Amino acid sequence: MESVKLGLAGFGTVGSGLAAILEENGDWIERRIGRKLEIRTAVVRDLNKARAVNPGPDTEFTTDMTRLTTDPEIDIVVECMGGLETAYDLIRTALEAGKHVVTANKHLLAERGPELFSIARKSGKGLYYEASCAGGIPIVETLKSSLAGDRVLEMLGILNGTANYILSEMTTKGMDFGTALALAQDLGYAEADPTFDIEGFDTAHKLCVLSRLAFGVDYPLDRLPIQGITSVTPLDIQFAREFGYRVKLLAHARSVEGRIEAGVHPALVPYTYLLARVGGNYNAVRVVGNAVGPVMLHGQGAGDKPTGSAVLADILDIAKHMNRPGCEEAYRPDNTGFGNADLPEADILPPEEARSKYYFRFTVADRPGVMAAIAKSMADHSISIAQAVQKTDEDSEGVPVVFISHESRAKDVTDCIEPSTPWTSRFCLASASEFFKVST
Amino acid sequence: MESVKLGLAGFGTVGSGLAAILEENGDWIERRIGRKLEIRTAVVRDLNKARAVNPGPDTEFTTDMTRLTTDPEIDIVVECMGGLETAYDLIRTALEAGKHVVTANKHLLAERGPELFSIARKSGKGLYYEASCAGGIPIVETLKSSLAGDRVLEMLGILNGTANYILSEMTTKGMDFGTALALAQDLGYAEADPTFDIEGFDTAHKLCVLSRLAFGVDYPLDRLPIQGITSVTPLDIQFAREFGYRVKLLAHARSVEGRIEAGVHPALVPYTYLLARVGGNYNAVRVVGNAVGPVMLHGQGAGDKPTGSAVLADILDIAKHMNRPGCEEAYRPDNTGFGNADLPEADILPPEEARSKYYFRFTVADRPGVMAAIAKSMADHSISIAQAVQKTDEDSEGVPVVFISHESRAKDVTDCIEPSTPWTSRFCLASASEFFKVST
Repeated sequence: MESVKLGLAGFGTVGSGLAAILEENGDWIERRIGRKLEIRTAVVRDLNKARAVNPGPDTEFTTDMTRLTTDPEIDIVVECMGGLETAYDLIRTALEAGKHVVTANKHLLAERGPELFSIARKSGKGLYYEASCAGGIPIVETLKSSLAGDRVLEMLGILNGTANYILSEMTTKGMDFGTALALAQDLGYAEADPTFDIEGFDTAHKLCVLSRLAFGVDYPLDRLPIQGITSVTPLDIQFAREFGYRVKLLAHARSVEGRIEAGVHPALVPYTYLLARVGGNYNAVRVVGNAVGPVMLHGQGAGDKPTGSAVLADILDIAKHMNRPGCEEAYRPDNTGFGNADLPEADILPPEEARSKYYFRFTVADRPGVMAAIAKSMADHSISIAQAVQKTDEDSEGVPVVFISHESRAKDVTDCIEPSTPWTSRFCLASASEFFKVST
Repeated sequence: MESVKLGLAGFGTVGSGLAAILEENGDWIERRIGRKLEIRTAVVRDLNKARAVNPGPDTEFTTDMTRLTTDPEIDIVVECMGGLETAYDLIRTALEAGKHVVTANKHLLAERGPELFSIARKSGKGLYYEASCAGGIPIVETLKSSLAGDRVLEMLGILNGTANYILSEMTTKGMDFGTALALAQDLGYAEADPTFDIEGFDTAHKLCVLSRLAFGVDYPLDRLPIQGITSVTPLDIQFAREFGYRVKLLAHARSVEGRIEAGVHPALVPYTYLLARVGGNYNAVRVVGNAVGPVMLHGQGAGDKPTGSAVLADILDIAKHMNRPGCEEAYRPDNTGFGNADLPEADILPPEEARSKYYFRFTVADRPGVMAAIAKSMADHSISIAQAVQKTDEDSEGVPVVFISHESRAKDVTDCIEPSTPWTSRFCLASASEFFKVST
């Protein structure tokens, strides 16, 4: 039977990872699907750049993107170049030209997924994206197929390996944020501009993509509350540990009486959770379904071969089901997990109304009445204190005071720590007040 | 569009769990696949038995199994009664009658899977079995689809919730095996006859099923080395903890230079592994692929709704892809993950040749030279000692001596602890020598 022909846009980390796997596991893949997979064309920016992986003499390297969509031999276009405009145009054109598309582009899917899924539906083609979230972890397939009959109640994810690596180093080695970030950059885990990773944007993109699969609604990226990890200090990590928690950058989403509460925040995760033990640059997702209960998936969230493996899973799924002559309309790929219907916009629980336990740390003057004044202000804002610690530190200008609250409303929390609140102006010193969510 | 009609064989834990989910999530499921799911017929042994879940007036309850295979309206037969002969006959007849089949029956699949897959292939029908392994954890789909392009190097699984519950109770509460088993029976986690769970047979059935998906070969159940947990003592668990391990009943399989080494054994799992933290009646599977690296899945391995959720995943997968009029041959379900080809028999690494680290515990007389004699005998059998502990216990007839070896050949280990070995007859007292594998 004829081989399945791929056209790759981009031959960087993901593209060359895919090529390396095809080379290594080619016979195995043929056994799986009864056909060969072949990279027919790879579009690159610089034809003269040295490449670590060579897909073989039958692969054409070109700078001409239109080859991917005009070559009738290409069955599946694999978009692994990233970015927004060019990738959008390619995917749209490919779908309209009757190609299936596999992409790892979470940013694009988060920003313009609904438009692209709508185009894919009209074309009757697959737009698959396992590699867009959590690298090699099969979370897209799990939400789309394996938990399809479950109503997802809650989803928690560690979706950015760079941020998790930085927090892990801070936890195990007591490093401060800047040192851990520099180390991550040295090791190639963080990019020169790490904004997307450390400010939570990358995690937010993935949360958008996964929320659609889990809840069947679109939660627009620009309405998602996002807090990064730049303000997490070694002191926070140490206090969290004393209370029995680890600090993680979490994507969280849950269904609250039909409305979706979601966001990206540094959070204290109970050490009894497996999620708290996810170390280094690993990713993990914990999904709670109303039938299946809690399910957790753990694996490598990035890297050439793990991500290439996820791209390949999508390719194989399409290749297995691709139409055969005489049955053109038989295969209707399910891209969204909801028969490709346009998803309604989420009924969003306004982030300021969301309820959570919170961790608070204040740096205060070491004098009588401080704890009492803060506690009173918290009470005035309906924040009930579950745990509190104050420590004396003779070397420092102020002492840290830490509270963990019972479930409180986000608005009350932000109101309470507003600089204009009397006790903050009275007792807070140089360092900003920090507050993180606490998972339960 | 017309509803998808199910015929259920059995309405026990799994069947009623499925019915409960269909009732609770019916609208959601219809949104997912664009059609209703309907239990048309349920075959039960006793029509007068009270049922906790009522699937509604349109469901016919009957004792006549032939209704499932002769009713042309039934699209999918769901076998959730267990057992071997009757279940085999039903599945064969259903496939031959052109029905898709979903089953949770790991014992049957382990014993006679290859025959049934062959029949399904000839009929062009789906024989799906997500629920047969690890309850709600989507490990079948993950191996069959998400990791399809990976060569699996190794697979470790905690696949029996009853055994894991007993070991967890022994670990956290210091119970002995018998007490923990009785507790598990009281709580309904263990059956009146717990043989399959505690002797490792149930785990072995699941390992057979998963090995096919992971390695594309059939490892016959009767050649699989199986060791249960009845000989694990609180002392073993305590020693394991001191060495940095937890004792778990593991299904393990790996590819060793093209040959498959597999088995079911109690094993010491390093506490740094997430797998070591799988508590209570949970299940988990850790798969290492040559591209994706290590991936771990964790969730509830049993129970009405978790297992029902897995059955439902299979039903939805079939329902999404089922042929439409005019395109009868378009959907060719992939049951084995290898285009339904008959799988070759595994090239088996003889279990006695398998290499592993081992944990040994001996109860010996407290007199000079004991440790030296045992160590010498181990050296004579090419077993190199990595760690050793001997403790004095004045109250007891003998003292425990524990060794952890470097990688050793299974045959050397069994030869070494044979009762005829001089030092065992000399020093061993009443209790048997125990040895477990040590995972790395």
